Amino acid sequence: MPRYKLTVEYDGTPFSGWQKQPGMNTPQAVLEAACSSFVATPTEVFCAGRTDAGVHARGQVVHVDFPEARDPYIIVRGLNTLMRPQPVVVLKAEHVADDFNARTSAAMRHYEYRIINREPRLALDEWRAWYVRKHLDVAAMQEGANRLLGAHDFTTFRDSDCQAKHANRTLSVFTVRRDGENVIINVSGKSFLHHMVRNMVGTLGLVGHGKWNADDVTKALLAKDRRAGGPTAPAHALYFMQVDY
Amino acid sequence: MPRYKLTVEYDGTPFSGWQKQPGMNTPQAVLEAACSSFVATPTEVFCAGRTDAGVHARGQVVHVDFPEARDPYIIVRGLNTLMRPQPVVVLKAEHVADDFNARTSAAMRHYEYRIINREPRLALDEWRAWYVRKHLDVAAMQEGANRLLGAHDFTTFRDSDCQAKHANRTLSVFTVRRDGENVIINVSGKSFLHHMVRNMVGTLGLVGHGKWNADDVTKALLAKDRRAGGPTAPAHALYFMQVDY
Repeated sequence: MPRYKLTVEYDGTPFSGWQKQPGMNTPQAVLEAACSSFVATPTEVFCAGRTDAGVHARGQVVHVDFPEARDPYIIVRGLNTLMRPQPVVVLKAEHVADDFNARTSAAMRHYEYRIINREPRLALDEWRAWYVRKHLDVAAMQEGANRLLGAHDFTTFRDSDCQAKHANRTLSVFTVRRDGENVIINVSGKSFLHHMVRNMVGTLGLVGHGKWNADDVTKALLAKDRRAGGPTAPAHALYFMQVDY
Repeated sequence: MPRYKLTVEYDGTPFSGWQKQPGMNTPQAVLEAACSSFVATPTEVFCAGRTDAGVHARGQVVHVDFPEARDPYIIVRGLNTLMRPQPVVVLKAEHVADDFNARTSAAMRHYEYRIINREPRLALDEWRAWYVRKHLDVAAMQEGANRLLGAHDFTTFRDSDCQAKHANRTLSVFTVRRDGENVIINVSGKSFLHHMVRNMVGTLGLVGHGKWNADDVTKALLAKDRRAGGPTAPAHALYFMQVDY
């Protein structure tokens, strides 16, 4: 069975997280229904990284096996027509080797977290960014972020429900920059724990408001205890941007 | 009565155009209800430029008279709380001279039009950009835009319902640039006719697809006939960005 890699965009707002669940609308369910209809046989898709309810994707990746080879252009057009009007879109389809696995073959995952830091609440970007009213000190946040770069035990930033075998992960990129009222956080690493990005961003929020400093971030990391970390930042401001293979 | 200038952001998606109309939800109605409640007396607001149904604003400006002076910070907080959960937000309130008029005092109005030019339909940006599938030649579009710069009779790009006394307008800025899959069009001028930006953008769409060239744009302009112009581009990709005074 030929295997395809699909790059997928979705608006997380109407969905109950990535994963299919009985009675719930999810991008996985939408995509599997479209694939099953496209090849006229029940078809499963396997993703690079599950996203929480509300989290958006600009470059989620899945792999899927079709009973026979199909033109990538026809796959893109066909699936996007079948998924209409759900806000899930296949950006690209590529024929890949049989041993390609969207999850285990991934070399690097890239996330972006978008904060809008201003006095008035949000009108145009309400479900697209985290509204933070009090001024954020972006230089201090970057100092805090630097303390988490590299290889660490990220137990402090892992959800209590996380089912990974261990919490050792390596953060390759963690940048915080301001562009007017926008504060953009970019995070990259080979793999992540459940809620890890949102828990790290929530902790940087404490630093940005001067409640914590960079040493407090290190202290929290070394505690290896979720209760030592900051709050979980909202889901609707997180974007799964890209997976490198 | 002290006069205030309010800078306003709104998501045009749920609204039937700027202007209040019986039984319709509009930013003007939302803002007037909030102002009336804030000062406990029926209050009208007057805008710099009415927007069509679906058009967004990042910097609409209105003026409003209050029975007594109020702290600008309290105005912003108060109105934004009163307008919740409608996607209308006051970004800034300023005390201005009694002869300030949001419409007639305006020296320059700035609009942005956002196209996403790619094969797959839109998931994340569905009501925020114009989805154009066929490749757009941005250099050709810029050549076409240049033909409309300066002072002209814009009858060709004016809606047949437009009630302005004449169609002479001066375009100060008309740029078209590509940023990846995004094509961003910026238009500035002292004042505009009804549907003028959308009609010009729709015409540039013909140029971008090679159906028209820059000479055809000049020919259409000189015809001074709406039927000589291109189609009206969609409302939901237009942003009223800023007004200079």
